[in-house]
Amino acid sequence: MSPIPENFKNEAYILHGLDDARFQPWELPRKPGPNEVLLRSLTTGICGSDIHYLKEMRLGNIIITHPIVLGHEASAEVIEVGSEVTNVAPGDLVTYEPSVTCLKCEYCDNKDYNLCEYATSTCPPYTGSLTYYFVHHAKFTFKVPKHVTPEEAALVEPVCVAVHACRRGKVTVGDKVFITGSGPIGLLMLIVSKAYGANRVVITDINEERLKLARELGADETILVTKEHTEKDLVERVKQSFGGILPNVTFECSGVAVNFRLVMLTTKSAGMCVFVGMGPTEITLPVAEAANREVDIRSCHRYKGAFPAAIELVASGKYPFKKLITHRFTLKDSAKAFDTVISGKGVKVMIKVGDQ
Amino acid sequence: MSPIPENFKNEAYILHGLDDARFQPWELPRKPGPNEVLLRSLTTGICGSDIHYLKEMRLGNIIITHPIVLGHEASAEVIEVGSEVTNVAPGDLVTYEPSVTCLKCEYCDNKDYNLCEYATSTCPPYTGSLTYYFVHHAKFTFKVPKHVTPEEAALVEPVCVAVHACRRGKVTVGDKVFITGSGPIGLLMLIVSKAYGANRVVITDINEERLKLARELGADETILVTKEHTEKDLVERVKQSFGGILPNVTFECSGVAVNFRLVMLTTKSAGMCVFVGMGPTEITLPVAEAANREVDIRSCHRYKGAFPAAIELVASGKYPFKKLITHRFTLKDSAKAFDTVISGKGVKVMIKVGDQ
Amino acid sequence: MSPIPENFKNEAYILHGLDDARFQPWELPRKPGPNEVLLRSLTTGICGSDIHYLKEMRLGNIIITHPIVLGHEASAEVIEVGSEVTNVAPGDLVTYEPSVTCLKCEYCDNKDYNLCEYATSTCPPYTGSLTYYFVHHAKFTFKVPKHVTPEEAALVEPVCVAVHACRRGKVTVGDKVFITGSGPIGLLMLIVSKAYGANRVVITDINEERLKLARELGADETILVTKEHTEKDLVERVKQSFGGILPNVTFECSGVAVNFRLVMLTTKSAGMCVFVGMGPTEITLPVAEAANREVDIRSCHRYKGAFPAAIELVASGKYPFKKLITHRFTLKDSAKAFDTVISGKGVKVMIKVGDQ
Amino acid sequence: MSPIPENFKNEAYILHGLDDARFQPWELPRKPGPNEVLLRSLTTGICGSDIHYLKEMRLGNIIITHPIVLGHEASAEVIEVGSEVTNVAPGDLVTYEPSVTCLKCEYCDNKDYNLCEYATSTCPPYTGSLTYYFVHHAKFTFKVPKHVTPEEAALVEPVCVAVHACRRGKVTVGDKVFITGSGPIGLLMLIVSKAYGANRVVITDINEERLKLARELGADETILVTKEHTEKDLVERVKQSFGGILPNVTFECSGVAVNFRLVMLTTKSAGMCVFVGMGPTEITLPVAEAANREVDIRSCHRYKGAFPAAIELVASGKYPFKKLITHRFTLKDSAKAFDTVISGKGVKVMIKVGDQ
Repeated sequence: MSPIPENFKNEAYILHGLDDARFQPWELPRKPGPNEVLLRSLTTGICGSDIHYLKEMRLGNIIITHPIVLGHEASAEVIEVGSEVTNVAPGDLVTYEPSVTCLKCEYCDNKDYNLCEYATSTCPPYTGSLTYYFVHHAKFTFKVPKHVTPEEAALVEPVCVAVHACRRGKVTVGDKVFITGSGPIGLLMLIVSKAYGANRVVITDINEERLKLARELGADETILVTKEHTEKDLVERVKQSFGGILPNVTFECSGVAVNFRLVMLTTKSAGMCVFVGMGPTEITLPVAEAANREVDIRSCHRYKGAFPAAIELVASGKYPFKKLITHRFTLKDSAKAFDTVISGKGVKVMIKVGDQ
Repeated sequence: MSPIPENFKNEAYILHGLDDARFQPWELPRKPGPNEVLLRSLTTGICGSDIHYLKEMRLGNIIITHPIVLGHEASAEVIEVGSEVTNVAPGDLVTYEPSVTCLKCEYCDNKDYNLCEYATSTCPPYTGSLTYYFVHHAKFTFKVPKHVTPEEAALVEPVCVAVHACRRGKVTVGDKVFITGSGPIGLLMLIVSKAYGANRVVITDINEERLKLARELGADETILVTKEHTEKDLVERVKQSFGGILPNVTFECSGVAVNFRLVMLTTKSAGMCVFVGMGPTEITLPVAEAANREVDIRSCHRYKGAFPAAIELVASGKYPFKKLITHRFTLKDSAKAFDTVISGKGVKVMIKVGDQ
Repeated sequence: MSPIPENFKNEAYILHGLDDARFQPWELPRKPGPNEVLLRSLTTGICGSDIHYLKEMRLGNIIITHPIVLGHEASAEVIEVGSEVTNVAPGDLVTYEPSVTCLKCEYCDNKDYNLCEYATSTCPPYTGSLTYYFVHHAKFTFKVPKHVTPEEAALVEPVCVAVHACRRGKVTVGDKVFITGSGPIGLLMLIVSKAYGANRVVITDINEERLKLARELGADETILVTKEHTEKDLVERVKQSFGGILPNVTFECSGVAVNFRLVMLTTKSAGMCVFVGMGPTEITLPVAEAANREVDIRSCHRYKGAFPAAIELVASGKYPFKKLITHRFTLKDSAKAFDTVISGKGVKVMIKVGDQ
Repeated sequence: MSPIPENFKNEAYILHGLDDARFQPWELPRKPGPNEVLLRSLTTGICGSDIHYLKEMRLGNIIITHPIVLGHEASAEVIEVGSEVTNVAPGDLVTYEPSVTCLKCEYCDNKDYNLCEYATSTCPPYTGSLTYYFVHHAKFTFKVPKHVTPEEAALVEPVCVAVHACRRGKVTVGDKVFITGSGPIGLLMLIVSKAYGANRVVITDINEERLKLARELGADETILVTKEHTEKDLVERVKQSFGGILPNVTFECSGVAVNFRLVMLTTKSAGMCVFVGMGPTEITLPVAEAANREVDIRSCHRYKGAFPAAIELVASGKYPFKKLITHRFTLKDSAKAFDTVISGKGVKVMIKVGDQ
């Protein structure tokens, strides 16, 4: 007997085509398989990749060819588990990794599962979270302590991006961190870098409102980038912001080509330059300058094994993650929520799906 | 009393200006200070950077503003040591690090001395090795076992470049290594990668003669690059040469922009892409493709702490380093030796300075 | 239709109780499941753990409570594969990991599967290799190139032990390695340390015959330990064997308590001391001396992800693994083979199972 | 002209012999050499090693053979610098590394200078800090921001011990940390582990007062060890305190043999067990149990490169280091201060030297 109320009419926010997404009736999910869980959707945050799907019907190598349910930065309640599931139980508050990997290839075997070439994401057999009920793979579903609100639990997935980037950049106590871009990921990098022990964090943006928020979140200094700045000016400005010494870790979080250059030029010799944002396919880079100083360049593709640490960061209550939430909508108003993100007005925009 | 014969007339191969180097009389070196050694030059190999100095009067940030003695891949005999020197003694066969660092800055303190911003190299107070006698800092001078010939000892310095690159690329048993460029550094990377345990090494060049030598040195497969190859062709060709799987470590050793792209595109997901060659200041790179696969990009600036390992590799007699030597000249014929390198005829060209 | 000849009478070497093992008829294996393979046994080497099972009916936490087939350092031919198997095919020469892990726990997820607490080994549902046919899990079965002999393929499993230990000890070019004990594992450590780039390897034993073999296998120096040696003598002797400097990596491979002390005392400051052998439960150790010098102590539990590298080492033909084989028997004479090992006469004793 | 007031009568707390230390007149320091600084002593904390010197005239390999000034966890004001000093200037508030290393040996070259065999400490040419003026090596002297009090600056040196141990144990976000012993070092480990991102820290002691302080400092749980506890009980108790899973990093900070055993037995498989405390020369350890689980055992000898990070931790004002200070004395009352430590009444006992 299904735990979904009899005669329940499911609905979802469905992407049909370029710039064409609609809130509409949607089929109820199938029964969970032995290693799957049936989830009641609670809260979903809108991610930049949702916007990419809406506006381009693609993201990186993923191309959308049929109607899909949008949303994946989500919290949910487990309402049914498959016969082999032991990590979560009905009633648990959970969040989940939207990408389900093959669990068989060399990368999955070597804990590099984020590089699995056979991962499915926002794709059959799984689906997005902007719907009342959906099924997910239990292995990629994680319990969240009950004192965490569904809204905070929905922040865990983007926090994972920052946790993975901090690990890639080996951030630790005493580090000086420079971040380009104060979008949701840049701001999370700021908070999470501090949790990893960064001693001083400086962040840029072209929007003073975002920088104001960055300072409230703990930025030690912010840099407003304008068209008047030359590259050389900016390098000098960054150096000054760290007392005349370049930062030893830098994170590119804007996706803008000039910032990929800037982080390379401003990373201290023997430091770590981490590309977190997804930028243009081709970028002209100052290779010799960075090579001469043995700056390591690392990039991030999603995250791996990051949920436990991210859940602990969120559950600890010590970090101002919630301050990123600027707008709240209900599922019926998903279109308005998306418009808010597209207009650039919101930082983190939340859609409440269930009656929590 | 100086160990240099009385009335000895010193001579040297001196760089005066663009394309203007001359074999001529040269002053005898000063007496070594407390931490210095007086060396009798034995054999010197010509390095690509010597050619850069000759043709451009500069290399990277180093600009030549006054006459200098060329040559720095050298072996020598210690003939006098300063009062505080304990690591070498008169009569020792030695090789040396040409760059002498400040020993005081943060990088010198943190064993990243190759990144010291105050290093002196082929510059006062030190000089090049294409002269009969010269002084060097004892700390950067290394004893070589007597069974090694002066010619082999002169190979230690470029072997250090390959040792440092293998460390940067973390080469170990079972690795699949791809190298672009079969110049002296590419060929040394081939030999040294195998010493570090690489299981399969594939190397490219545009010159079939070089590839023939590469195969004699142990290359498992060679790729002759022609103008007909598209980038896509080459990526596919590299993949095939490793049985359909991309190599997990790649080394760019040609300094040619297209190869910086090629190594990024052919490094396996989560692998290491190492820039060894010095390329153009700006290069347009396929950032998103490599970032998506979390390929780490590392570069090399000289080497650090590499002499002991490089000396052991050379002294072991197990590796075919000597096969790289294609031409031999005497100090008087230094100009001919340089012409041989410039014409592209030689691989490693040696100049015998003393009567060994 | 099974590929096993109709009416084939299977036989096996079965452990029934303390010191009670018999060659006898044995049931044919079940049909392989979707992720399993049916193997025809080729050659099996006898491992120290086989002797532990025979003499004590246990090893570490594993207690034998019912008749089992002995043998697990094995090569075999695949004769049938389950429906989901893609990594091997009928006709392949293979070797395999005897321990099959749960693939679900935290350790299995984090590529520390050798620490899985739910591993099965020489236990249902799997079995030993001293029988004509048996079934194994495909994921733990590895293809070996056809130019490798079944006997060499049977050496891959113990080579994995040495590969894992070299990884734990981070052996690389230029390292000085000291090994206690010249049993099969100590001798494999010697060969594999050199493959990882060790520059000088010194090894001990109480048996001069073993040390003679060690020198043939490439030991740079051997130390015959006698009852006359005090601990202090031995430390001094080891130091001398490395030219007055302590080795930076040490491997304990004898399982004898005094050697656990010796490797701690002879590891260079900041070096790696690796416990490979299985020693007594409790050992009195010179903690302060090693702690004062920040010697890292690491231990080894089987191996993980080591088969690909070990197969490449064996298949390369560059290393003298075969010289370890001192005796050969057929399956019918398994008891004699075990007696040879127990008597201490053999180094690696091989049992040929099939007609290869 | 010396910056020390003319006719100033210097005094110091001098160790003469076993349990014989006296406050007495003492010679003024010599003029600082080119790389030295003249310091005016401000505040000194008493360290366990000071007690060892007083009670045993030795610590580890250091044997006291002539009268020395006690004290080395100190803050001071620079009042004169040698001709080559650039890192600090007169007027600076500083703290310093008491051990001055040779700067020439292999360990000093490889940033393992804490393992230098030629280090001098509380020894000529340098001296302790329980005196009004003294000279130190500038390279080992570190500027502290002026907003830090001299008392807090005197805590930097012991904080370095905890920083080094966290680095050795690779503590990062999400770690579960178990500490044995709530003396000053154990309590600093607790605070500093949290700064490195530890998610849960549990600490033991035999003194409930100490555990109360530990809880105030942020311990998530404390374990009062009594004589009734068996080793097995304690292992179980520790496991429970982490929700049934063993902690992945453990720090032994008590110096008591049973705790060296306990940390080995309670470290999670593949975890890090760090010996921070100085224990007995020989300890009987459960080697097989830890080896079976590949627990890495690391130890700490002082610290290296830890002052910048430790100063930042103290200067950030975010951590409750000051709560460790339980007693304060003046230089004249040094004997009382030492008695307080010896009696076990104090945690961190401070001696104010100058009029700050």
